[in-house]
Formats: sequence, structure tokens, C-alpha cells
Amino acid sequence: MVNKVKAAVMTAPGKVEVQMLPYPKLDRGALILKMEMAGICGTDKHAYNGETLLYGGTEAEQHIVFPTVHGHENIGEIVEIDPRDSSSIEYHGTKLKVGDRVTMCPNVICGNCYYCRHIFAYPFCAKNTTIGLSYPSDRHPYVVGGWAEYMYVPPKAWVYKVPDDYPTTLGALIELFVVTATLDRAKEFSRLEARGFGFGDTVVVQGIGPIGLLHIAKARILGAGDIIAIDSSQFKLDLASDFGADYVLNMSETTKDERVARVRELTEGRGADVVVECAGVAEAVPEGLEMMRRGGTYIETGNFVDTGEAAINIHRHIAAKNALVIGNSNHPHTGYYRAMEMMLRYNDVFPFEKLITHTYKIDDAPEAMEKSLDPESLKVVLVP
Amino acid sequence: MVNKVKAAVMTAPGKVEVQMLPYPKLDRGALILKMEMAGICGTDKHAYNGETLLYGGTEAEQHIVFPTVHGHENIGEIVEIDPRDSSSIEYHGTKLKVGDRVTMCPNVICGNCYYCRHIFAYPFCAKNTTIGLSYPSDRHPYVVGGWAEYMYVPPKAWVYKVPDDYPTTLGALIELFVVTATLDRAKEFSRLEARGFGFGDTVVVQGIGPIGLLHIAKARILGAGDIIAIDSSQFKLDLASDFGADYVLNMSETTKDERVARVRELTEGRGADVVVECAGVAEAVPEGLEMMRRGGTYIETGNFVDTGEAAINIHRHIAAKNALVIGNSNHPHTGYYRAMEMMLRYNDVFPFEKLITHTYKIDDAPEAMEKSLDPESLKVVLVP
Amino acid sequence: MVNKVKAAVMTAPGKVEVQMLPYPKLDRGALILKMEMAGICGTDKHAYNGETLLYGGTEAEQHIVFPTVHGHENIGEIVEIDPRDSSSIEYHGTKLKVGDRVTMCPNVICGNCYYCRHIFAYPFCAKNTTIGLSYPSDRHPYVVGGWAEYMYVPPKAWVYKVPDDYPTTLGALIELFVVTATLDRAKEFSRLEARGFGFGDTVVVQGIGPIGLLHIAKARILGAGDIIAIDSSQFKLDLASDFGADYVLNMSETTKDERVARVRELTEGRGADVVVECAGVAEAVPEGLEMMRRGGTYIETGNFVDTGEAAINIHRHIAAKNALVIGNSNHPHTGYYRAMEMMLRYNDVFPFEKLITHTYKIDDAPEAMEKSLDPESLKVVLVP
Amino acid sequence: MVNKVKAAVMTAPGKVEVQMLPYPKLDRGALILKMEMAGICGTDKHAYNGETLLYGGTEAEQHIVFPTVHGHENIGEIVEIDPRDSSSIEYHGTKLKVGDRVTMCPNVICGNCYYCRHIFAYPFCAKNTTIGLSYPSDRHPYVVGGWAEYMYVPPKAWVYKVPDDYPTTLGALIELFVVTATLDRAKEFSRLEARGFGFGDTVVVQGIGPIGLLHIAKARILGAGDIIAIDSSQFKLDLASDFGADYVLNMSETTKDERVARVRELTEGRGADVVVECAGVAEAVPEGLEMMRRGGTYIETGNFVDTGEAAINIHRHIAAKNALVIGNSNHPHTGYYRAMEMMLRYNDVFPFEKLITHTYKIDDAPEAMEKSLDPESLKVVLVP
Repeated sequence: MVNKVKAAVMTAPGKVEVQMLPYPKLDRGALILKMEMAGICGTDKHAYNGETLLYGGTEAEQHIVFPTVHGHENIGEIVEIDPRDSSSIEYHGTKLKVGDRVTMCPNVICGNCYYCRHIFAYPFCAKNTTIGLSYPSDRHPYVVGGWAEYMYVPPKAWVYKVPDDYPTTLGALIELFVVTATLDRAKEFSRLEARGFGFGDTVVVQGIGPIGLLHIAKARILGAGDIIAIDSSQFKLDLASDFGADYVLNMSETTKDERVARVRELTEGRGADVVVECAGVAEAVPEGLEMMRRGGTYIETGNFVDTGEAAINIHRHIAAKNALVIGNSNHPHTGYYRAMEMMLRYNDVFPFEKLITHTYKIDDAPEAMEKSLDPESLKVVLVP
Repeated sequence: MVNKVKAAVMTAPGKVEVQMLPYPKLDRGALILKMEMAGICGTDKHAYNGETLLYGGTEAEQHIVFPTVHGHENIGEIVEIDPRDSSSIEYHGTKLKVGDRVTMCPNVICGNCYYCRHIFAYPFCAKNTTIGLSYPSDRHPYVVGGWAEYMYVPPKAWVYKVPDDYPTTLGALIELFVVTATLDRAKEFSRLEARGFGFGDTVVVQGIGPIGLLHIAKARILGAGDIIAIDSSQFKLDLASDFGADYVLNMSETTKDERVARVRELTEGRGADVVVECAGVAEAVPEGLEMMRRGGTYIETGNFVDTGEAAINIHRHIAAKNALVIGNSNHPHTGYYRAMEMMLRYNDVFPFEKLITHTYKIDDAPEAMEKSLDPESLKVVLVP
Repeated sequence: MVNKVKAAVMTAPGKVEVQMLPYPKLDRGALILKMEMAGICGTDKHAYNGETLLYGGTEAEQHIVFPTVHGHENIGEIVEIDPRDSSSIEYHGTKLKVGDRVTMCPNVICGNCYYCRHIFAYPFCAKNTTIGLSYPSDRHPYVVGGWAEYMYVPPKAWVYKVPDDYPTTLGALIELFVVTATLDRAKEFSRLEARGFGFGDTVVVQGIGPIGLLHIAKARILGAGDIIAIDSSQFKLDLASDFGADYVLNMSETTKDERVARVRELTEGRGADVVVECAGVAEAVPEGLEMMRRGGTYIETGNFVDTGEAAINIHRHIAAKNALVIGNSNHPHTGYYRAMEMMLRYNDVFPFEKLITHTYKIDDAPEAMEKSLDPESLKVVLVP
Repeated sequence: MVNKVKAAVMTAPGKVEVQMLPYPKLDRGALILKMEMAGICGTDKHAYNGETLLYGGTEAEQHIVFPTVHGHENIGEIVEIDPRDSSSIEYHGTKLKVGDRVTMCPNVICGNCYYCRHIFAYPFCAKNTTIGLSYPSDRHPYVVGGWAEYMYVPPKAWVYKVPDDYPTTLGALIELFVVTATLDRAKEFSRLEARGFGFGDTVVVQGIGPIGLLHIAKARILGAGDIIAIDSSQFKLDLASDFGADYVLNMSETTKDERVARVRELTEGRGADVVVECAGVAEAVPEGLEMMRRGGTYIETGNFVDTGEAAINIHRHIAAKNALVIGNSNHPHTGYYRAMEMMLRYNDVFPFEKLITHTYKIDDAPEAMEKSLDPESLKVVLVP
């Protein structure tokens, strides 16, 4: 019988330790998983850098806690489930049993606040807690995050069954892929005119980390025309090309003005139809708005934690552009199964497996954390 | 026979003169009107203040010209029309003749650039020219603006017939009322969830000039719940109440933090569902985003010319808020007849006539211009 | 202590009896209410007429049961609530206690089937049960419907707190008013073009029962232009005028062709922008599609139970019209509080109280049922 | 110099003749093309069968004329253009000259009727005329259709420049591909819930002619999940598989009930998310609605001419299904360049060239017409 769980704990900004934590007790509605794989996400890096304010300016405002077991891009196998809960935990009520593989949405919501009742699909909950970010590791249930041998999935989490033969690496990317749902939303603003995200539109992706690459894939799946990738790492831009980007712009070889000029040149002088910010840097926004055409759509999805201010010219960038700006800090819980199915359907079109550049054991979590900050890495994952 | 036209010419920022201009020659496709009334708009005030960059950051970028006859909120009577054009000038092809009253959309577009072909209703044209802003008064056709005894309506302008018994004051407000079409657009983003502009939503209007007041009326007509008006003039806030605002916040008596707190207090702590910026000041935007709830809609319609930058916290104001920001610098040409009909239908509900606080003769245009800058004035109009 | 509950039971089509039923036992999650008022709805009339198939052609397909206590437009006062449930029953989690007044959504859903997970606001649940239609009165909890002195609100129902001073009559109309949310949806299809339900659109309402009248009110609140009401009862058409219909067409004095011609005459030959079917008769649909303009919107909301087939010319009525047809058999649970607030806000504009033409005691339920079929009645309600 | 034009003329239903028609005179705004290729479309077949009523039930109602030169899916080379028109004919104002290749939208509209002013992209014009359907061949300009050596493109037609190296066969399919824009529209109704046409949705296509096959391609490009094709020809179903259909249902081997059951089986019992009617048969509609899930989307695009009535159960098929039905009889003029670009981009994914099964000379037009009715043919084209 297991008594202790080996886990990677972020004890403070800049500090990740391997600890043996108590094995949690199973509560009604909860699951205990034996982990297969868990990713290191941009939010984990922000926390490591001391940028810890989540959902600033909203009632859900909270700080990423220390110490905590990070890890919210998870795939694992059920080792404990209360038989009375077998048909009530999975998202669609499907029966679950020991041995089944699952992934989960990291957001755990209250279910009846104003946001839970009035916003669909997105976990806007004012009382949201987040797996891998907001459960302290120094009290029960200790391991509410995937950087561990075993993890505790709290009651009311949205849990999705993963088929037995589903590739583990794809499984660890599902959560990330769901974030691209803002592109689906942008589709809804089109109405056959040059708004939203229309058939054949030129899409710029700013910042080619894992989330940027997945936006390239999703944009293509939804009918994009030219896709332009921007980053300062040639390694990442090469991957963007592998994912089907038609053009890449290297920030270390170009000025902002040159990039804006190049995007306009590729779009008959107008600017891109859609720009997606995946860089996680506030200053990317005025640059992105500048390279967006009049009537274009700007998706802001990278600044998931507070990274400071940017100077926006309200007339030039918003009003005169007749911009549609869509802020996003979430992924819809409705999107997991579709993401799971479609990644498999497109697995031979996009080299999803290249997204995971490094795999570490929990024992080597501190090194994994450092590696994740390396511009030559993309998704770094932990396995038990 | 008329040889000269008395007109108010803005010869430079800060300078309006009464001049006698040559009476223009009628070209094919054009109209000559005897003016009934023409408004002084916020854009005219911006020009007077030297803020003259229009459509910054787009291919339509241009400066308001000097000298020019301003006036783009016009109602007048046809005195000259080429008989061969009688069925081709009016928006729907309705027959026009001498003596008919008309109003017009100030934007004159090319009709076949990318924007004319791909954006509906809004004149996004890359080669746009604007009545009352971009036609020099020192060459033919001289009087392409309504601050004059007679005006020349250029070919390809959208011209709308005004019924004989339609009140002149309402006629001068039609163009302005069409600007509120962004509220119709916001309706389209709702989908029964707390997005866009839903039934019963709380709406904040920042800046209670004529355009702010008309947004209050339009929000009510489209099914708003509580409406909150913000301005620094009690005179204007009293008018906001007359237009049905449920709450008013006086900026000269409150701090930004107090206003944000008050809006939250009125919305169960969440912030307003919809915020409309009608102040024409860049700094209004971060304040407005702060008082908007998570998942709310921000309509930026006031900064019609370049008024500089504002510091926006990308995470706090856009991403974490999951904001939908709709920039607007236009009015749809499809909206004129509906605006005309609906203002009449609601003329007993909203005191539209109070919007026009001062009426001047063309001879007194310099004084009228100054009066329009007075916080105790709203719409100032010129009559021949 | 109460042992028996006087209730009106529909024991078979055409048969309503007053019975003394056992007083139910309070389960966890349930409420027991002392009824204030409950309406007789069109669905109840359909059941009485033997038309009992609900949600035909879907997994939620079921028949209205016999015997059952009808009544799903309810307002009552809490007499029993488990203290452990005080914060978990109300829709937003607001604390409830004995003495509080509430209304409810009649649909009770499972929460995790495909529909519950993927359709927002509308109770599309494949396992839906309906208060007042699907709970047999011959076994516990007996009185799951409002035509009784006391009623049992089952666990998982959406319950909404009604303010102490809220008019009882308005309270009994809330559920009905929420049905008009399809007009909010239609708004979302507009995009400033002549689609969906745009600002100033002409709206035809077919069938002027209570639901037709509320669609007139809602259309006006959302910015309709002309509203045209159609019915065969002059009594009802007069009420339509009281609710602000601009034109009425009496079916007993006109042929179908005359009605179509009249609608076209009122719309410059085009047909109505929006047509809402509230008649509950299959044959109303081809007539309504005929009087709808090209590109118009047709809302089908009246045929809530199976009323048979109509012959539709697919080319003429659907393809060539480029019709948008929105079928509806539900009301969104997100709409109750907004409906509650907005009916109060507009209570001096629309004579909502006139909707309730007859009030009966439970003892007189059989007579009330018959009266509800009288074309000179509108909403008939029962009180204890 | 050319004096006569060899053309295929449909002189009456069931009758196509090869005639030598006068070579037309070039008017201002018109073009004369040397034809490269022109398709035989479903509408041409309907005319041949005597089904000639277009846009029934609308102000645009008209009959396909006899005699006329059919052919509205055209690609040809400019042989005559007035130099004064060189920059005003092409859709975006691009310069055109003799020798340039072009395609065109068949609809020619007035530009200022209610529909031209208020509906975007789609030619809803009340005074619409259609190339290849409504210009009589017995008076000037004789050859307003592509089944000829030369054709006359009337003034105000939307003309699109085709690159010199663009494959002729793809060029002849552009117009057809634009019809699939209703799938783009359906995307806009999704809002991340199971409405409209969402990411990964199951799509049924009823009728696998050319338009059905292109809907399969388009659905895939826009992110469909499983695609199910239905037809009675195994030849066509095999092509559907080549285009990526995941499942095919042969109508000659199955009953309606079996097909409905099979679709439900493939969708966990619910029915398809999206059904597209491309069969051009009225009775396909109730079958398609039956196999559509609750809350699904039905696109009616096949019954382009009057094919009679179908019996629709209003409750079962519309209301209880909460169906969204989108009627379509058009293609948006905004879609041509995107269709042109995207067909080329996806030319290696979909075997577009297989769509054209038979190529005939104008001389053999009568035989071509007969061949087009053969279930073993798809697109039959004519070349000079």
C-alpha cells in the first residue's frame, strides 16, 4: 500500500523541490490517479518567475499559491474511485472504474454563482479554484496537481475518459488544444463579411510556444488561408513551418516596423485578418494591433497572468481600426472530447509529437523547470 | 439667381470664418441643397482643437483639411438635381425632385476596394472622403459641408429622403443616432448568455454629449436594464436622467476608484455588462474597462480622431476580463431610415429636442463654434 | 398539521377532478410551497384535448402522464425546506428560508447528458422531466404541479426567489415571458443586415393568446418597428392593440390570401421581417412563411405538442426565401430573473394584468379548465 | 472577324439545339469572352425537365426563359473590353485587358433595391437577372451564357480575374464551390455550444452530385468530424469516399428508417449535428430533419427551383427539435476569390478534377445535356 507520493513542489518563485507528500484519502466525488504524464505550462513558468496574479480585476482574482504541486495538463489512470461515484464523475455521466484513463479540466467551479449560471462553457466562476495552481501541498489532499506519482482530482472537476489506446503524448496536450476555442468563437463573428475569422483569412500568430503551434494547427483545421508565425527563436519558427505556417518572421532579425511592413506586404497592404497573441508579453499587443487590418480580429490569450501595461493608442489601434478584440483566459469544458477526437484525426497532418521536446522524471523536476525556460524547448513534460 | 453662398469656413485649427463662396455648378450625380440645419459635431471640435488625424493606422488615414466648410449632420431641400439622376441618387432608388428634403451619410466611398466589397454597411473604404471634413473650400465644388446657405452633395453619396412633415431638429440628429448601431452589433454577440448586450443588461455610458445621450436612448430601446451615465457636467447628467438614465456619476465630485466602486455596487459586485465610451478621451478606456464585468462588452466609439495613448493592463483589462472590445469609427449606411423612423416613434419617450441646446445663424458661426466647447452646451446647430 | 392537499388532477384527456392527495414528505433538495397562483397553459389545454406527445422525434420524447397535477407557471411561498439545503436550491445559491416566495422553471434536467453539457440555457436534456406534466399524482410526491394548495418542488429544479412585494399576477407570468427569449436569439442573427431581428423590423405574431401578447411586448422592448397581430378573436386582437400592436388582422373576416396581401402592403411589398408562430396549429406555418419576406426569420414556438403535419413548399418557403427558421420548445433558465425585473420595469407600458382574464379556486378547476378553452379568455389562473 | 457564335440553345424544356447566333456588339460596361469551359448545373437540368420557377414566393420570382444560352459556371478569356472600363469591371477594381482570364457570378443585380441595400454578399435583388438563365437568345446580346464559343458578360456583373496558370477545370468549379458558403454561415451560429456548425461536428450530406461533393470538401476544410454521404448511386458514393466521407449510405439498398437509424447509431443515438440537403428533391427534407439531432442545423440548398411540397410535422421536425433551418438559393459574391484560392490550396487533398466526369464540344451539347442526367455522371462541361 502506498503511503507517500513523490511530487515536485514549487515552494516559492524560482524554487522547485522534489518532496515525499502524504498519500491522500479518497473523498466522495474525488478520484486518485496514477499519473502517466503532466506538462509544464506557461502559467507554471510565470509562477516560477514570480508573476502570480490570476484573473486580475475580477472577483476570481487570486494568487498562485506556494507551496503547491503544479501540473494541470494531465493524463493518468484511475487507482481509486468510490463505487457510488462511478456514474457521476465523468463529464457525460459515463461509467468510470479503476484502470480507466482520464484527463481533466483544471478549473473547478462552484456551479451556481452568477458566472456559472450565465456564461456558457468557460469557467468564469467567481470562486474558481485551479488544479495545479491553487491547492496548497502542505495540507490534505496534498497532491492536487500532476507533477507527482499520484494525484488527487477534487470533487466537481470535469473529468474526461481517454480511450485505452489513445497516445499518451496527445493526451497531455488536450487541455492546451482546448484553449484554441477562441478561434471557433472568432468564426462566429464573420457573417460572410471580412470580420471575425473567415474562410481563407490570413492569420498571424505572435509567439510560437506550444500554444502558438496549436493555434497554427487549429487555424488551419478551421479553414485559414496564409498563416504567419512570429517568434525570436529560429528553432520554434522551424517548427511553425512544420505545422504549416506559410511565412515566419524572426524577431531577432527584424524590427517591429519591418514585421508590420512584411505582414502588410503579404496582405495587399491591409494587414492580417486575425492576429492571435500567444507570446505572454504585454508589449506584443500594440505590435499585433498595428499589423492587423481595419476590421480585423485580435485574440488576446497569452497574458494569462499579470505582466504589466502596454501603451495603446485608442483611436489608432481600436476605434479607427474598428477592431474586434477578444480577451481570453480560459478554455471551454465543452471542448475536451472534440479536441481529443480531432487531434487524433489530424495526427498525420500536424506533428503533434514534436511539441513535446523534453521528458523528465519527477526526480528531475527542478531541471525540467529550468529546461522549460530555454527558448530551444517547447513543451517539457514530467513522468513518474 | 444665386452667385455666392454664405458659408462658415474652418481655415485653420481654432479659426472659423464666415465667407462668401462661389455657388457650385451641378455635376451629374450630385445635388445642390438649400440648407435647413446642420450640426456641430465632436469631430468638428477635434479639428478646431488641432486633432485632425482620421482613421489612423489604416489605409483610409487622412487629415481633416483646411480650409473646409464643415457640417456633416445635415438636413436640406433639393434646389438642383439633374433630371437624368432623379431615380439613381436616393439610397433605395426612390425618385427625387426639386423641393424634396434629404439627409445624407457623410462618408463617400469608392464602391469596389477590398473594404467596400467585403465589409457590410460600414464605410470602411480605403479611399473614403467625408462630407464636411475632406473637401477644400477653395476650389470647386466649394461647399461640401452643411455650415452654409447651400451645400453640394457629391456624386455617390448616400442620400435619404426625409418626409415633408419630419421635424427639422430630429432630421439633424439622424446621422448621430445611426452611430449607436454598435449597440445593435453588441446584441448579436449575446446568445442568451452574459455576453454582448443582453436583455436587461446594465449599461454604462462614459461621456454625456449628444452621442452619449443617444446611446442612452438606443440602449433603452433595445432592452437595457439599468443605465448609468458618467460625466463631469451636472447639466449633462440632468439631461441623462431626462433620457432615462437610472443612475448618474459626476466626475467632478468623485474619484475614479469611487466611480468603479459605485458601478460594482450597482451590479452585485461584478461591474457593468456593457460600457460605451463616448467621452472622446483616451484615458476613459482603462477606467471603463475597470468598471466592466468579467465577460463584459466595451464599445469604443468616442475617440474618432487621434487623442493619444492610454496605458492598458493587458492581463487585467483584456485577458482576465475575457473582454469583448468593439472599436467603432463609423455608422452604417443601412441605418438611416430605421433611425429616422424610430426617432419619430420614440419622440414622446425621449426629449430629443433637448439635445439641441443652441441654434445660430451662419453669420454667427464663430460664436457657435465656441459655444459648442462649453460644457453647458450639447448639440449646437447652424441655420441659414 | 396538514395531512391532505386539495389538488386539481387531470385523470384523462377531457377530465379534471378535484382530489384530496396525501401531503408529501420533504426530501433533501426539495421544497414544499404553499401556492399563491398557478396558470393554465396551452400545453395543459393540449393534454386536455388528448394531444400528449412531448418533444417528438427526440430522445426526450415522452407523453404527458395521467393522472397528474398540472400547473407549471407557479408562484408560491416556502413552507418546508431542509436547513442543510438553504444555500443550494436557489438558482444563484442565494439563501432561502420558510416564508420566502419563489417561482421555478418547470423543466428538471439530469445535468450531465450530452445536451445538458453542450446546449446552454435551454433544457434540452434527454432525460428531462417536467413539473406539472410528467409526475404521476398517485404516488409520492403526489403534488408536483401548481394546481393545488401545496406543491412539491423536486430536487434539482431551478428555483428563483421572488421579492416580497412583487405582484402575484406578474409572478405567475414569468415563466411564460421567458419563452420569448427566441426573440433575443433572433437579435443575434442580424449583424446590421436585414436578417434575424433587426432594429425597427416589422414583426408578425400569429395567434394572440397569452404567449402571443407577451411576444408583442418583448418585440417592442427589443426595438421592433411595426407589429402586426393575427387571430380570429376580436377580443384578443383588441388586447393586442392594448399591448401596442400597430395593426391587427382578424382571421374570421379575412382569407389567407388577403392576410398575406395585407402584410405585404404594410411592408412595401416584401413581407414581414420576422414572423412568430404562437397559434399552436401546424397550418399556421405555411401561411406565416408566405407572409415573411425573403431573408426573413420565422420563429416556430406554438406547436409545443404534436399537432400533425403541414405541407411546406421547400423551394418557395425555405430555399427561395432564404428563410431562417428557428424551432423552439423551451425557455432558457438564464432568463427568469431578467424576465422578472423587466416585467416590473415595463409594467406601466404594457397592461400585463389584463393577460389574466379569469381567476378560479382549486375547487372550481374543472370549470376553469373549460373556461381556458373559450376564445374570449386568455390566461386563466388557479388560486387555493 | 467573327460574325457568328456557335452556341447551345435550350429552346424548350427537353430541347437543346446547336445554333449559330449573331456575335454581340460590345456595350459600355460589358465584356466579350472567348469561352474556355462552362458547366451544366442542376438548375439547367431542372429547366430541361420543365421545372422553371425561380425564387418562388419572392419579388424576384421569374421563370427560366426559352430560348436561352445556358451556362453560368464559366471561365473564359477576354477578347473585347472598352478601354474606358478597364478599371471598373473587375470586382475589386483591378485593371483588366484583352487576354485576361475571368470567371463571374451569374447573378446581375440592380444595386439599390431594398435587398441590394440591406442584405450583404448574397444577391437577393428583387430585380435580379441571371446569366445563363434569363437572357433570351433571340435578341441582343444573344449569348449571355457560357455554352457557346463566345459569351457576352453584361454590365454590372461581378467579374473575377483568374490567374494565367489557374487550372481550367478548377476555374469551372469556382461558382459551385461558393454555394457552400452556407456552411460558413452555420459556423457563425455555434458560440461553443452544440448549435450551428461546431468544431468536430457530424455532417450528413443528402445527395452526392457536384454540389454535394463540394459540401463534403468544405465541411472538412472548416473542421467537421464524421461526414456521412447519402445517395442512390454507388458511383457517386465512391466519389464521396474519395472526397473524405467517413460513411456512405446507399438509398437503393436501405429504407428511410434504416438510414435514420444508421445516422443515429453513428452519433450515440442523437442524430447528426448538421444536415445539408443537396438532392434537389422536396421529400429529402423530412428525412433529413428526422436524422438531425435536437438543436441541429439543417441547410436547405438543393431545391433551387420549385419541386413541390413535402409534409413536415411542425412539432416533431421543427419545434421539438429546436431546429435551425437555413434556406439558401444563392452564393455570396464575396466568396469567389476565397473559393479560387482555397480550391488551389486543397487541390492535393480533394480530387476536384474527378468532379468533372465528362467533357463535350458545343457541337455535342444535346448529348452532353442527356449525359448530365445520367446517375453515373457528375459535372458535365462544355468546351468550344
